[in-house]
Amino acid sequence: MSKFLNQKISSLTPYEPGEQPKQREYIKLNTNESPYPPSKKGLELASEQAEICHLYPDPNCTELTKLLASELGVKENQVILTNGSDEILNFAFMAYCDQDTPAVYNDITYGFYKVYAKLHGVESKVLPLKEDFSIDIDAFIKEKGTIIIANPNAPTGLLLSLEQIEKIVKSNPDRVVVVDEAYIDFGGESAVKLIDKYDNLLVTQTFSKSRSLAGARLGFGVANEKIISDLMRIKYSTNPYNVNRLTSAMGMGAILDKDYFEKNCNHIINNRQQTKVELEKLGFYVTDSKANFLFAKSNKIDGKNLYLKLKEKGILVRHFDTDRIREYIRITIGNSTQMQAFISAIKEILEEL
Amino acid sequence: MSKFLNQKISSLTPYEPGEQPKQREYIKLNTNESPYPPSKKGLELASEQAEICHLYPDPNCTELTKLLASELGVKENQVILTNGSDEILNFAFMAYCDQDTPAVYNDITYGFYKVYAKLHGVESKVLPLKEDFSIDIDAFIKEKGTIIIANPNAPTGLLLSLEQIEKIVKSNPDRVVVVDEAYIDFGGESAVKLIDKYDNLLVTQTFSKSRSLAGARLGFGVANEKIISDLMRIKYSTNPYNVNRLTSAMGMGAILDKDYFEKNCNHIINNRQQTKVELEKLGFYVTDSKANFLFAKSNKIDGKNLYLKLKEKGILVRHFDTDRIREYIRITIGNSTQMQAFISAIKEILEEL
Repeated sequence: MSKFLNQKISSLTPYEPGEQPKQREYIKLNTNESPYPPSKKGLELASEQAEICHLYPDPNCTELTKLLASELGVKENQVILTNGSDEILNFAFMAYCDQDTPAVYNDITYGFYKVYAKLHGVESKVLPLKEDFSIDIDAFIKEKGTIIIANPNAPTGLLLSLEQIEKIVKSNPDRVVVVDEAYIDFGGESAVKLIDKYDNLLVTQTFSKSRSLAGARLGFGVANEKIISDLMRIKYSTNPYNVNRLTSAMGMGAILDKDYFEKNCNHIINNRQQTKVELEKLGFYVTDSKANFLFAKSNKIDGKNLYLKLKEKGILVRHFDTDRIREYIRITIGNSTQMQAFISAIKEILEEL
Repeated sequence: MSKFLNQKISSLTPYEPGEQPKQREYIKLNTNESPYPPSKKGLELASEQAEICHLYPDPNCTELTKLLASELGVKENQVILTNGSDEILNFAFMAYCDQDTPAVYNDITYGFYKVYAKLHGVESKVLPLKEDFSIDIDAFIKEKGTIIIANPNAPTGLLLSLEQIEKIVKSNPDRVVVVDEAYIDFGGESAVKLIDKYDNLLVTQTFSKSRSLAGARLGFGVANEKIISDLMRIKYSTNPYNVNRLTSAMGMGAILDKDYFEKNCNHIINNRQQTKVELEKLGFYVTDSKANFLFAKSNKIDGKNLYLKLKEKGILVRHFDTDRIREYIRITIGNSTQMQAFISAIKEILEEL
C-alpha cells in the first residue's frame, strides 16, 4: 500500500476469487464454471470481430442488446450489458445505496456484496439465513434498504420461488430489489417476467455459468426502462466501452445456439442430481441446490480437511473458512467424467479415514 | 431516471463518446482509432483462447503482465492491466483523490477527467492552458492536489518533454501525478522510465490507439509497486476478472508483433506530417500534434460548419462545441487513402464557400 492511498480504499478488504492454479492439471470444480466449451457460433462471430478490433465497439451494444431482449421477451431499453455481472452489481450499489439507504443482504451469500457496500461507503444490514440456510423472507420484508438477493443463493444453492421473490419486491415499493440470478438457468424461474409489473425490480444475470463464457466476461441487468437509464448513466460515467467486440460476439453466439445452451443446462442438472444421490449414500448432507454446484457436508470429515484431501488427489473444490459453513464444501458440477472422478476420490478419502 | 436513483449519480453528466454511425459508410476520422487492423498474431492467440472461454481468465493476467513488463523494461509488480485505460484512470481517481485532495487537470484535455472527479465526489481544480494551448507547468507545480496530465494532450496533441514531466512529478512528492500517455507512441517520450525514481508517478497507456485494439479494450498502468498494489486493491474490490481471455490474447499478439506495431506508428507519423503540411497550405492553423490526430482551424470556416460539411461528404471528424476550441476540428490520422480523401473534401468545401 502506498502512502498516497486514501482512507476509504485502504480500509477495504477485497474479494478473493477461487484459486486459479497454474502448476498442475486439476479437475477444477471450484469456481462454478461450465465444463462445456463455448458455442462454436460464438467462435465464428468472434473471429470476424477480431479482424476489426482496431475500431471501438458500439458502446450501446445495439445488436447484442436487441438479440438478448428478444430472447428474454423484454424491450431493448430494459436491458444493459456489462463486463461480467460483477459490473452490473457494482453499478446497482452505486445507484441505489447511499448514506441513508443501506444494502440489505444475507449473511451467507455471494461474498462481493459486502465488498461493494464498503467500497461505496454504505452501511450493510446483514440478515441471517435461517438454521436450514433458507432465506427469511419476512426479515427482508421488514427492511427499508436496497435489497440484494442471490437466487438461487450461493453457496447454498437454495432457490426462492417466483412467488416468494414477488412478495419481497412488492413489499418494498420505495426501494430497489436486486435479484442476482447468476445461477437461475439450472432449475429456477427468472424474475425477469416481473419487470413490467414492478418498477423497483432489477434482475442481474451472467453468461459465465450456463452460457459457458466465464472467460469472456459478459453480464447484464434487466429492469424497468428507468432503472436501466440510471445504470446507463453510470456506465457512461465510468467506462462507456465496457463490453468489447469479442465478448459481444461470443455472447451473440451463445444466445443463437439455443439447443446447445439447453442441452448443457440439462446435462448439469442431471449430473447434479446423480452426484447428490451418490454423496447422500456416502453419508453427506447435501442442500437442495438448484445451481451448477452442490453444497455438502460429510458426517465423517470437516470441510477444510476434505477440501485439502481432494486437492491432494488433484480435485479442486471450494471451502469457505467462515462461520456457519465451515463444515461444508462447494462442488461445481462438471461433466460426467469429472463427477465420477470426484465421487471416486471422496470414496477413497472416506476409506482412508 | 428512476425515483430510486441517489443524489450523487443523478447529478452526473456522463461522458459523450464520439459518434459511432451505423447508417452510412463514413471515413471515420473522429475517435482516434488506428486505421490498421490488429496484428494477425493476436487473432491466432485469441482464437485459441476462445475455445476455452468457459473457464475464467487468470485474474492476475500473469502471462500478459510478464510480457508487457519485459517490453517496458519494468518489473511485473509495476504493471496493472485494465478494461481499457478508462478503467485505470477511474481507479486512479478512486485511490488518490478524496474530500481533501482535489483532482488537478487542464481546462482543455480528455473529457473524462471531470466526469471521474464528479463521480467520486472530489473537487476539480481546473488549470487553463496558456493562450497557445501549451501546458502551464508552473501552475501545476504550485498545486497540491492529485495531478492528471494527458501527454500528449488531447485534443491539442501538444507534447511535454520528459524533463517537463519530471519537473512536475518532482515538485509534488506528497501527491500522485498521473501521466495519461494514451498517445505517447506517436512521437513522445514515455515517463515509464521515471517510475523507479519517483514513487508518486503513475503512467497510464492504452492498446486502443497505436496497438490497433480499440475494439478489444485493454489499458494499463505502470508505477512503483506500492502504487500498483493500491490499484490492484481496487481491481479486486470492483471486478477481479476485468480483462477477459480474448482481450489478453489480442494484447499479447500486439506486443509480440513488434515490427507491425512500429511500422504502423511510423505510417501514422508520416501521414500526420503530410496532412499537416496540406492543411497549412490551405490556410489552416494546425497545432504541433504528436498524437494520432491533428487539431486544426481554418481561416475561412468555423469548426462546427466544417465538421457538418465534412460529414455531408461522408467524412467524420470531431468537433467540440466548448469554449476556446469551437473554431477547431480534431482529425484522426487514418491511412494514406483516407487522408487524401479528407484533403480533397476540405478543398471542395473551401471552394464551395
